[in-house]
Amino acid sequence: MRIGELSRATGVAVPTIKYYVREGLLPAGRLTSPNQARYDDGHVRRLRLIRGLMDVGGLSVAAVREVLAAVDSPQEPVHKVLGAAQLAITPPPAVTPDGMEAARGKVAEIIRRRGWRVGGDNPAVETLAVALATFEGIGHGEFEEVVDDYAAACERVAEADLAWVGRNAEVDGLVESVVVGTVLGDAVLTAMRRLAHVDASARRYEQGDGGPAGATGTP
Amino acid sequence: MRIGELSRATGVAVPTIKYYVREGLLPAGRLTSPNQARYDDGHVRRLRLIRGLMDVGGLSVAAVREVLAAVDSPQEPVHKVLGAAQLAITPPPAVTPDGMEAARGKVAEIIRRRGWRVGGDNPAVETLAVALATFEGIGHGEFEEVVDDYAAACERVAEADLAWVGRNAEVDGLVESVVVGTVLGDAVLTAMRRLAHVDASARRYEQGDGGPAGATGTP
Repeated sequence: MRIGELSRATGVAVPTIKYYVREGLLPAGRLTSPNQARYDDGHVRRLRLIRGLMDVGGLSVAAVREVLAAVDSPQEPVHKVLGAAQLAITPPPAVTPDGMEAARGKVAEIIRRRGWRVGGDNPAVETLAVALATFEGIGHGEFEEVVDDYAAACERVAEADLAWVGRNAEVDGLVESVVVGTVLGDAVLTAMRRLAHVDASARRYEQGDGGPAGATGTP
Repeated sequence: MRIGELSRATGVAVPTIKYYVREGLLPAGRLTSPNQARYDDGHVRRLRLIRGLMDVGGLSVAAVREVLAAVDSPQEPVHKVLGAAQLAITPPPAVTPDGMEAARGKVAEIIRRRGWRVGGDNPAVETLAVALATFEGIGHGEFEEVVDDYAAACERVAEADLAWVGRNAEVDGLVESVVVGTVLGDAVLTAMRRLAHVDASARRYEQGDGGPAGATGTP
């Protein structure tokens, strides 16, 4: 198809498509004349992936380039590929609030308690420490009381994610599944957490007020 | 304390503090002379909250202003306050990919299946639909197989969050707890999901290779 058809198929404007080609996010089309290139279904899919990572995942052009580099360069073994893809989409935190030493100790203790096989150099370790130090710094250190609930919930999600990635590996490529599932999965998880909050709040504070029959245990 | 001391106590530069005052994020200090103002511990705490929302939560100055307005204006009843605070920190999605009608139907079905008491006008409903439509558009529609695992995990987190907020209500104000817990809790949840991924991947693909004794069931 021509670039105009690619634009109509994906809803991405022609100048934006050209920009992605210049930035190395999208492979150039196949030249059929000096001024004309042809694109195929692979371009449609790649464009949708780029927009999904940006619009839903909130990734920058630079981050999308990193992620696509991981998608396009699978290596062995599987566990290392997953690690590389994860690193590309998990920037280290930009700040170091007060109390980081204590917070890092708490994260190490959580990892030990859960029995997680995680290297201390994983950027998510530092991100988690920054979040806990921030809770502490603004007087909400008692958030620690619920971290094990968070951890158990994440274990369940991770198990489901890995099972999904494993099933999906033959279809579209393992690394792309990991990247897509991680970035878009974050969006799903935070959106669902909002909805579950509304429901939990309704159950806790609105008992018997407008809920579905049976939800409150009264006839 | 003077503004220089406030800066040292929080690590926020003096011009930045003045900017936050101008932008209405931070109350002005108490004037002790035409050129000098005094700040107190309330300013320290508020500054840390602002930085936490920006640096950990990734909120813009405008979003922080919205959130602080909710924090500073509690109303009754509790469930409505929680809803208002949540709306302020949950912007509607900026895009509408193809397939939104089908995706909205799937979200409605998930909400019905989980028995969640959630209004269809909640912005997280639309955010979730955008994420599912994006999965579908890039050929990963089978992600739906795991949405109930995500939902169950979020129910657990929401229960823990509400219990924490309930315990914390007397200490620092219910709305601030909700806002802080929601924004920073997202960061905790996504960071922990990364760590749980590494662990699940190690268990699945590295059985017996470098794991802790007992993790693989072999001596």
